[in-house]
Amino acid sequence: MFLTRTEYDRGVNTFSPEGRLFQVEYAIEAIKLGSTAIGIKTKEGVVLAVEKRITSPLLEPSSVEKIMEIDEHIGCAMSGLIADARTLVEHARVETQNHRFSYGEPMTVESTTQALCDLALRFGEGDEESMSRPFGVSLLIAGHDENGPSLYYTDPSGTFWQCNAKAIGSGSEGADSSLQEQYNKDLTLKEAETIALSILKQVMEEKVTPNNVDIAKVSPTYHLYSPSEVEAVINRL
Amino acid sequence: MFLTRTEYDRGVNTFSPEGRLFQVEYAIEAIKLGSTAIGIKTKEGVVLAVEKRITSPLLEPSSVEKIMEIDEHIGCAMSGLIADARTLVEHARVETQNHRFSYGEPMTVESTTQALCDLALRFGEGDEESMSRPFGVSLLIAGHDENGPSLYYTDPSGTFWQCNAKAIGSGSEGADSSLQEQYNKDLTLKEAETIALSILKQVMEEKVTPNNVDIAKVSPTYHLYSPSEVEAVINRL
Amino acid sequence: MFLTRTEYDRGVNTFSPEGRLFQVEYAIEAIKLGSTAIGIKTKEGVVLAVEKRITSPLLEPSSVEKIMEIDEHIGCAMSGLIADARTLVEHARVETQNHRFSYGEPMTVESTTQALCDLALRFGEGDEESMSRPFGVSLLIAGHDENGPSLYYTDPSGTFWQCNAKAIGSGSEGADSSLQEQYNKDLTLKEAETIALSILKQVMEEKVTPNNVDIAKVSPTYHLYSPSEVEAVINRL
Amino acid sequence: MFLTRTEYDRGVNTFSPEGRLFQVEYAIEAIKLGSTAIGIKTKEGVVLAVEKRITSPLLEPSSVEKIMEIDEHIGCAMSGLIADARTLVEHARVETQNHRFSYGEPMTVESTTQALCDLALRFGEGDEESMSRPFGVSLLIAGHDENGPSLYYTDPSGTFWQCNAKAIGSGSEGADSSLQEQYNKDLTLKEAETIALSILKQVMEEKVTPNNVDIAKVSPTYHLYSPSEVEAVINRL
Amino acid sequence: MFLTRTEYDRGVNTFSPEGRLFQVEYAIEAIKLGSTAIGIKTKEGVVLAVEKRITSPLLEPSSVEKIMEIDEHIGCAMSGLIADARTLVEHARVETQNHRFSYGEPMTVESTTQALCDLALRFGEGDEESMSRPFGVSLLIAGHDENGPSLYYTDPSGTFWQCNAKAIGSGSEGADSSLQEQYNKDLTLKEAETIALSILKQVMEEKVTPNNVDIAKVSPTYHLYSPSEVEAVINRL
Amino acid sequence: MFLTRTEYDRGVNTFSPEGRLFQVEYAIEAIKLGSTAIGIKTKEGVVLAVEKRITSPLLEPSSVEKIMEIDEHIGCAMSGLIADARTLVEHARVETQNHRFSYGEPMTVESTTQALCDLALRFGEGDEESMSRPFGVSLLIAGHDENGPSLYYTDPSGTFWQCNAKAIGSGSEGADSSLQEQYNKDLTLKEAETIALSILKQVMEEKVTPNNVDIAKVSPTYHLYSPSEVEAVINRL
Amino acid sequence: MFLTRTEYDRGVNTFSPEGRLFQVEYAIEAIKLGSTAIGIKTKEGVVLAVEKRITSPLLEPSSVEKIMEIDEHIGCAMSGLIADARTLVEHARVETQNHRFSYGEPMTVESTTQALCDLALRFGEGDEESMSRPFGVSLLIAGHDENGPSLYYTDPSGTFWQCNAKAIGSGSEGADSSLQEQYNKDLTLKEAETIALSILKQVMEEKVTPNNVDIAKVSPTYHLYSPSEVEAVINRL
Repeated sequence: MFLTRTEYDRGVNTFSPEGRLFQVEYAIEAIKLGSTAIGIKTKEGVVLAVEKRITSPLLEPSSVEKIMEIDEHIGCAMSGLIADARTLVEHARVETQNHRFSYGEPMTVESTTQALCDLALRFGEGDEESMSRPFGVSLLIAGHDENGPSLYYTDPSGTFWQCNAKAIGSGSEGADSSLQEQYNKDLTLKEAETIALSILKQVMEEKVTPNNVDIAKVSPTYHLYSPSEVEAVINRL
Repeated sequence: MFLTRTEYDRGVNTFSPEGRLFQVEYAIEAIKLGSTAIGIKTKEGVVLAVEKRITSPLLEPSSVEKIMEIDEHIGCAMSGLIADARTLVEHARVETQNHRFSYGEPMTVESTTQALCDLALRFGEGDEESMSRPFGVSLLIAGHDENGPSLYYTDPSGTFWQCNAKAIGSGSEGADSSLQEQYNKDLTLKEAETIALSILKQVMEEKVTPNNVDIAKVSPTYHLYSPSEVEAVINRL
Repeated sequence: MFLTRTEYDRGVNTFSPEGRLFQVEYAIEAIKLGSTAIGIKTKEGVVLAVEKRITSPLLEPSSVEKIMEIDEHIGCAMSGLIADARTLVEHARVETQNHRFSYGEPMTVESTTQALCDLALRFGEGDEESMSRPFGVSLLIAGHDENGPSLYYTDPSGTFWQCNAKAIGSGSEGADSSLQEQYNKDLTLKEAETIALSILKQVMEEKVTPNNVDIAKVSPTYHLYSPSEVEAVINRL
Repeated sequence: MFLTRTEYDRGVNTFSPEGRLFQVEYAIEAIKLGSTAIGIKTKEGVVLAVEKRITSPLLEPSSVEKIMEIDEHIGCAMSGLIADARTLVEHARVETQNHRFSYGEPMTVESTTQALCDLALRFGEGDEESMSRPFGVSLLIAGHDENGPSLYYTDPSGTFWQCNAKAIGSGSEGADSSLQEQYNKDLTLKEAETIALSILKQVMEEKVTPNNVDIAKVSPTYHLYSPSEVEAVINRL
Repeated sequence: MFLTRTEYDRGVNTFSPEGRLFQVEYAIEAIKLGSTAIGIKTKEGVVLAVEKRITSPLLEPSSVEKIMEIDEHIGCAMSGLIADARTLVEHARVETQNHRFSYGEPMTVESTTQALCDLALRFGEGDEESMSRPFGVSLLIAGHDENGPSLYYTDPSGTFWQCNAKAIGSGSEGADSSLQEQYNKDLTLKEAETIALSILKQVMEEKVTPNNVDIAKVSPTYHLYSPSEVEAVINRL
Repeated sequence: MFLTRTEYDRGVNTFSPEGRLFQVEYAIEAIKLGSTAIGIKTKEGVVLAVEKRITSPLLEPSSVEKIMEIDEHIGCAMSGLIADARTLVEHARVETQNHRFSYGEPMTVESTTQALCDLALRFGEGDEESMSRPFGVSLLIAGHDENGPSLYYTDPSGTFWQCNAKAIGSGSEGADSSLQEQYNKDLTLKEAETIALSILKQVMEEKVTPNNVDIAKVSPTYHLYSPSEVEAVINRL
Repeated sequence: MFLTRTEYDRGVNTFSPEGRLFQVEYAIEAIKLGSTAIGIKTKEGVVLAVEKRITSPLLEPSSVEKIMEIDEHIGCAMSGLIADARTLVEHARVETQNHRFSYGEPMTVESTTQALCDLALRFGEGDEESMSRPFGVSLLIAGHDENGPSLYYTDPSGTFWQCNAKAIGSGSEGADSSLQEQYNKDLTLKEAETIALSILKQVMEEKVTPNNVDIAKVSPTYHLYSPSEVEAVINRL
């Protein structure tokens, strides 16, 4: 069974007889190996929280960036290949800056997400901006625009969904169940912080410290928590 | 038998000894895995109805877009790979806008459909706009132009047909039979709404709610139903 | 035997040891699966008749176009992949319009046919207008120019022949025999209509109706018969 | 033995270990399947004669063109893939017209032949004018320039030879032997016509008629014989 | 097991079914064969130390460059394929010079590292600056900018991390352990020199001499130690 | 053994594990199948002599050109694929003409040879002038410039050597031995003619006649012998 | 074991699972088959000496160039594929001339070497100047610039080293040992000549004569020894 698969997935971007795109499915596997990230939307804004795997005490924790700013009203958390994510984020930053320059107003969160997915979809096309393989990364895109706060989830196929709350990465299955139990539309941002971190704590193998998690919010602008702000959330658990 | 197939379908766009194009056939398989969509043409206009698979209660139902506007007089329902469909729809939007700009009048529904199929046909060509594989999506294109209302159906081979009523996706076989039984040329738009939703209800595994179906009409302009408008149709079943 | 074939036909456009081009031969197979089309040349003009396979009663018969106008003095009937045929016809329309614009007179039927075949021949070349595989379609090109009426037949290899009468598609073998028996140079256009439809009737599995056949003539301009005109021919059988 | 061959000939234009170019050899096979063509040079001019395979009585014999004019002082007979030959002839027509335009005098027959062979040699190069495979056609090029009448023979490798008389196609072996027996330098054009047609008659399976052979001469300009002129030659046999 | 791997890694830049990029993993193997390099960040600046494998006494030790200057405030140590490293360093030199020219100020160490990783990430893309395979080299990038001293570590996947101390190359495993034991944030530059060299001494098979190690510091500008300066450090061990 | 070879030589221009370039070696095989050519340098000039294989008495011997003029002071004899040789010679003619035009003096024989070899070396590169495979031809280039007469020998690898005398083609082994025995630096041009033709006679299977050999000299300008001049040399044997 | 290798080295420029680049390793094999070349640096300048394999007494020894001038202050000796070396040398000549023209001063020896290695590194990239395979050649580059005399050694991977003395080619192993024994920094140029030639004599199978070795020096300008100058060195042995 496995052998017949191999007949079809060598072409980077071709269908198998069952109508599947294996390279995309394999890229999704890459994300299942990634660290866990969680996003929660509230009326006051969106919270992002990620696990950082600090493989050596000599690593600078702040250089393991798994939450990045796209524009002042948009941030994203990522799971999968970090170098791929950086390329996507850089692309989105250029897009949002161009939009501000051309139209004198911020790009909406959905348009930004669509721009990211357009790039992700066109792998294997050989044109200048696309990759020769799928981007091996999922993003949780948190933003705030004229429609209020919003949270998007993208996968390597270039598809995106709008969510109230979502977990990605190796611990996503358990985390998603917990989110469904604990989420309601009337959460305060502060409650969302606590829920995100408590769920992250469950799926992480190590003790949670300001060194191995990052938290950010978009409310209504992007803000990455300082170690002491993270400490404060940890203390509330 | 299966093995000899594999000898021929690796070239993305080549004939097998029996004169078949396997990549196109495999893409059509991708659509059979998709959610069901239904279109019905009446003298008053065209109705589109789709099943939305909401895999998590935390997903924003309105962000699972399976019916999209192309121009103010054209909309489409889709089944298959949503990211592919978005690319096609974006292409059609540019074409229809260019047409309005150049000729000062709306593009006909058939020309719009043809433009979509031209792009779909040329996969594997290596030029800038085409994909390296077939688009894994079928569309039901509903429109209204100087010839009145019309409904088109496209498949991944770049072929299109004009229909009175048509279902696509995983439940299309049963739905098409029901459409043939219930369709007649004198249906009112309201009757078409009811028929479309009742058939969708049969092929869906879950209870129909305003969250897991979308309805739109082109009569003579595109209108996506609000949750309460969908609710009203559900209540008529 | 079949296996050794596969060694040679993977290169889209290469010779086998016996000097054959398999991709072209496979494309010709695609046409043998197509619906039947018939063309008959008379002194008064040329008649084209095609079988239309209406797979569902909900399909709009007029949208299953198997006879198309190229220019006002040229039309063509097709068998094989309809999307491929549309590309060829669109190419021919541009060529004939350009010719009218540049020279102020219609393009001859032979030059139009040659232009179509030039495009068909160059598959696999990687340039902008050509396909990466042969066009899977045969055409019967009916026209009227300064040399009077003429009928051309093209195949996927880019070769063309001028004929007095010709059938293509799944029923072509039987239809060609009948044509040879019944054809003579002094047929009237009306007699040719009757012969074309009576032969089509023999090779079709269903009853002939105005819904499942199309008839057109070039005499001296292209005219696609209305349902009632088709009905009239049926009634003469 | 056959299997080891296949290891080397997949690259369209690469040497086998024995220093052979298989795609060229396979293209030469394609010509052995073609209809027979004969050329004879006399002091008065050159005669070309070809067999036309009329597969159906409904084909227009004059549309099966196996002898074509290149310029008013050059014509050619062909055997092999007709669509390929048309491309070569079209290329030669452009070259000879350009030469007349640039230099105000006709292109010599040898330069024209060289131009055709340059194109034939460069298959598989990926540039704009060349094919992705060898041209599957041999030509007999008859011409008349400042050096008097001349006859050239080209093969798919892009090599050419000047000949006094030459046969190509499926019957070429027997025809070449007959030519060697009957040729002498003092033949009149009329005698050459008779010899060409009598040899063609031997290798053809059917009775020779004005419908299934074509004759042309370059003496000093190209002239394709009318059916009655062909009839006259037949009657001399 | 090994065989099934080979099915996936031939495409230079494609995912395996487990979501892995084998060419990147193989390039990382190339680095495990390389000579050892060590970097240590202190408050006074950053120290780099490398082992040089002098395979012949006739080699000029100073021409075996494993520490190179990028800009006056940035240097790097490398392990793996030296020719690849030179290309990356040359690219970084152009980037930093362009930055100085355009903005009148030095490029930050992180931006320089990001520019290097962008190039490394895009292997197999076919554009002008990228390689057709991953760069088989890891870098330790030492710099000093407005944020003070910093040390970055890059791998062939285009990922980078900021570190307090890091070892790369064949002896990196043991060296990293030693670094973790001996590192603290209050080291002086002089202590860092001694630690770096004493660890290098442990992993090298030969006696440490000014000929087979290189030491450099960025404090706040790049300085490569002369043989006598290296000698002085050796004498402190 | 043969099988393992095939693993390496499919890439047109790649090394085998033993450091060999098989496509070049196979092209050299092609030359071993070619007709024999001989060159001899004397103080008075250079003599070239070739065997011409006249496969049919109807071929025009003068059209089988195996010795060609490059410029008035350079000629060459060839063995292998004649169409390839024509391309190289045409390239050299353009180079020498351009040189005359730009510098007002003839190109040296060595520069001309280098230009030919540059083209030969770059096969498989995909640029406009190069071939997708090695040129299957060896050349003996005879010339006379400011350094006096010279004779160069090129092979398909793009390497060249200057020689006093050299034989290429199927009879080269025996011919080279004979040349070593009979050559001395004080030969007159007339003696060289006799030696070249007598050696050619030994390796040819047929009787030597003015029809099946060609002789040329560069002394100091290129001159191809007329049949009667060849006859005169034959009579001296 | 050998078989699994073949799985990885077909991609011209890709890593094997152990992090190796096989095409580069195979190209290095090509050099082991080449003739031996030796370089020795002294304070007075650099000496290069090479073995020339004169396969036939009819070859002009001076045309077997294995030492070539790059600029008046740089020369190089080569081993491996001579046609490849010529391309590299020609590239270096253009670079050094451009440098003189742009900056009015000679290019340094290191920059020239780097320019050669940049070209060698980028094989398989498909851009205009690079080759589709590694250059199968090693160079010993001797030069003299503002830093005095220097000797560089390059290999097919694009790596280079500065040396006091170095041997390349089939006899390099033994020659390198001898060089290590006999080299010291205070050698005179004359002593270096004698050492180079005596070592060459050991590794050559034939008697050393002015015909089968070449000697050159850069001191401070390039000079290739005349046969009598070589004779003089031979006589000192």
